[in-house]
Amino acid sequence: MAPGRSRVVVVGGDAAGMAAASQALQQAAARGRDLEVVAFERGSATSYSACGIPYWVGGVVGSRDELIARTPEEHRRRGVDLRMGTEVVGLDLAARTVAWRSREGEGTEAFDELVLATGAVPRRPDAPGFDAGPEAGVHGVQTLDDGSALIADLDSGRVRRVVVVGGGYIGLEVAEACVVRGLHVTVVQRGDTPLGTVDDDMGALIAEAVRGEGVHLVTGEEVCGLELAPASEGGRDLPARVRAVHTASGLELPCDLVVLGLGVVPAVALAREAGVPLGESGAVAVDVAQRTRADGVWAAGDCTEVRHRVSGRGVHVPLGTHANKQGRVAGINLGGGYATFPGVVGTAITKVCRVEIGRTGLSTEEARAAGFQVVTTAVDSTTTAGYMPGAEPVRVKLVADERSGQLLGGQVVGRSGAGKRIDALAICVWNAMTVEEVLSLDLAYAPPFAPVWDPVLIAARKAAQAVEAACRRDG
Amino acid sequence: MAPGRSRVVVVGGDAAGMAAASQALQQAAARGRDLEVVAFERGSATSYSACGIPYWVGGVVGSRDELIARTPEEHRRRGVDLRMGTEVVGLDLAARTVAWRSREGEGTEAFDELVLATGAVPRRPDAPGFDAGPEAGVHGVQTLDDGSALIADLDSGRVRRVVVVGGGYIGLEVAEACVVRGLHVTVVQRGDTPLGTVDDDMGALIAEAVRGEGVHLVTGEEVCGLELAPASEGGRDLPARVRAVHTASGLELPCDLVVLGLGVVPAVALAREAGVPLGESGAVAVDVAQRTRADGVWAAGDCTEVRHRVSGRGVHVPLGTHANKQGRVAGINLGGGYATFPGVVGTAITKVCRVEIGRTGLSTEEARAAGFQVVTTAVDSTTTAGYMPGAEPVRVKLVADERSGQLLGGQVVGRSGAGKRIDALAICVWNAMTVEEVLSLDLAYAPPFAPVWDPVLIAARKAAQAVEAACRRDG
Repeated sequence: MAPGRSRVVVVGGDAAGMAAASQALQQAAARGRDLEVVAFERGSATSYSACGIPYWVGGVVGSRDELIARTPEEHRRRGVDLRMGTEVVGLDLAARTVAWRSREGEGTEAFDELVLATGAVPRRPDAPGFDAGPEAGVHGVQTLDDGSALIADLDSGRVRRVVVVGGGYIGLEVAEACVVRGLHVTVVQRGDTPLGTVDDDMGALIAEAVRGEGVHLVTGEEVCGLELAPASEGGRDLPARVRAVHTASGLELPCDLVVLGLGVVPAVALAREAGVPLGESGAVAVDVAQRTRADGVWAAGDCTEVRHRVSGRGVHVPLGTHANKQGRVAGINLGGGYATFPGVVGTAITKVCRVEIGRTGLSTEEARAAGFQVVTTAVDSTTTAGYMPGAEPVRVKLVADERSGQLLGGQVVGRSGAGKRIDALAICVWNAMTVEEVLSLDLAYAPPFAPVWDPVLIAARKAAQAVEAACRRDG
Repeated sequence: MAPGRSRVVVVGGDAAGMAAASQALQQAAARGRDLEVVAFERGSATSYSACGIPYWVGGVVGSRDELIARTPEEHRRRGVDLRMGTEVVGLDLAARTVAWRSREGEGTEAFDELVLATGAVPRRPDAPGFDAGPEAGVHGVQTLDDGSALIADLDSGRVRRVVVVGGGYIGLEVAEACVVRGLHVTVVQRGDTPLGTVDDDMGALIAEAVRGEGVHLVTGEEVCGLELAPASEGGRDLPARVRAVHTASGLELPCDLVVLGLGVVPAVALAREAGVPLGESGAVAVDVAQRTRADGVWAAGDCTEVRHRVSGRGVHVPLGTHANKQGRVAGINLGGGYATFPGVVGTAITKVCRVEIGRTGLSTEEARAAGFQVVTTAVDSTTTAGYMPGAEPVRVKLVADERSGQLLGGQVVGRSGAGKRIDALAICVWNAMTVEEVLSLDLAYAPPFAPVWDPVLIAARKAAQAVEAACRRDG
């Protein structure tokens, strides 16, 4: 009893949207269902790695094309009716149509099922001047088109000083890329240490690494304004350009270019206006099958809310790996198969120069905010047996429930071989293991890869002792 | 109601024995118990890294002392009554005594509780000549004293050609060390590919790496004899030395030195003769607290059997990391605390030149032998995003239960960044996750560390498809 021809409209052509589109077609074909997929992308590229943009800016990746996993042409060959450079500007759930606009014109498209994959947009400081765009030298780093604009600006020769507003993952990665380009780089942020998602003591190690590579790191400062200066060339007026960023305490940070590194907010305007319910995080609420609460409307990727498996809360965790998985799940279900997205534990990783940083689960602050009483422990070890010449330092911090000993979160900071150890902790957190169980894990040991007690296990051993001590104390 | 003074005798001074000794003292002290610990070690070192010996042989580690985690003096300062160079030669369970022998003499020692940590000894081919010792140029690689003898022999200048019998972990590591020393090295083994604990298709990649570094790898050959030749120097007779290894098919492998790389067998003579029950693997049977079935007798480390969490079988997995954990567990329990060793999943890792190899759980053959019907899948990916300059190849193979989809085992072979990915699979196997669950895991993603789908997740995705296909087929 296959239904008649059904039309799916996908809004957004990056990871989530195009994974949904291709999976839906594939699953439908396998089941002999007649499915039509129309996808809208307002930009100039599909299925690209936004996370790779900092490496393109820094010259590690040679060209824009290398960041594209699948081109519009490839998607079309697989049967997607893809409309590039076309923005969806309206959604009518009752009429089952989207309204679109492109350089060539505008129109509407009918759908039976809709996939919202509208992504996210850079968070901007709520202060005068920060609504300026790339022509003024103010750049987000979300899309390939953002990346192109940023690189063109850096290549123009008029930029010597860069201010990155926000010390998050993308902010630090772009800061490093700009240092590699020989620029003077300032990172200004509200918190005391970079990467607000790790504890301050671990963040201090990151701050040290950031400063060590020559970045001017300004912490504990709120930006309060962006100053523009008129520009001209050969008597001809040009758009005004950034001249400085000002902070609440009175600092003036002169610059020729500003990067928005405050993270992103989900792009939910379309959903909100159409009445598609949002979740507690402000992103589109979805169930485990990636269905929204509006009939026949699905959502995936950076515009959606995900369930945090430890806190149980709805959170917004924009990341390519989730977007890919969610798009796949939405597509499989749309095409007649069955798949679920079981949530996240908040795993993240980055690299600042030679320092690798990973985190998973809840930080101390997040755990307390979620209602847990915790013990935290940190240990210093090495990435290989201590006697091997390649031994590099690594610090592992764990956050555990004081009563049950459940591992709630973990953080690692260290050199080569440190970062990806966070995966072990991520899987332990995922499985709600206790630190006592974790310390017994059968992790791989050989001198070039780990000490006889892997740093992860040493940390768990110390955490188990702390849980035991807390248990005795609280009786 | 602390009991009166109690005496613990520990037989064996490496990882397991000394971890037990120091934990027992520590736990007893914390509880105000009066505990005396006497430890016997027949060799010249305590608490050393046997796994580090190949790196010492290859010159990567500069000296014997670097492999020692804690010296006899350090143990004595912590209160262990340590008898070095003293072998325990008899055990009387009824009289509660051990008999010992040293260069200085012999005697007996009484105990209330006993810890067997006698380790393992190299497996020797059951063929003429292989009972020869270091003076003939036939070397095991189990103890630091073995390492000293091997290095002295290699340093003597009389060795140009080495034959390693057995292509297991230690065999390959020593082979590489000998190549680094500029020697001609042959590895001869019975199986078709090295490392019998990985599937043949993965083993083929390892064989390629082994040959690529200049080792003469002879597979599918059973050794049938070791030929000795008389030696003399300046008219003085010296002990006979190895001249060649012969194989059943008639190959003659000329050599000046032989390394026993066939793995080890548990050193259980003492236990067996005293009537301490052994398990199905031939090693000493213990419960989760590391108690043997003989009253007041504990055991830990390479002489003991461990429970394989996937097959449920008692297996012998001699490895420093298990020895340390088991010694800790025995010691905590002896000292009045409580800890358990919950078994292993057979995780192992090694490195052959630039190729990293990891395995966990059951291989295809092991899974079938344990009664499972399995699907196996292998995928090729990269250790970082494919577009990053540091992207290295990695192949991941999974073994899953055909019906339930439970992940039974995993294997990885690849370059830098590949090997330690086995930890993720090890924890999945430990938690009996299905491949469908594994593919959804929140593993760390950023371009310098992984593709947007980590190789582990790609492998799980493919395995989940294979399970689904098998399910449809078997209906």
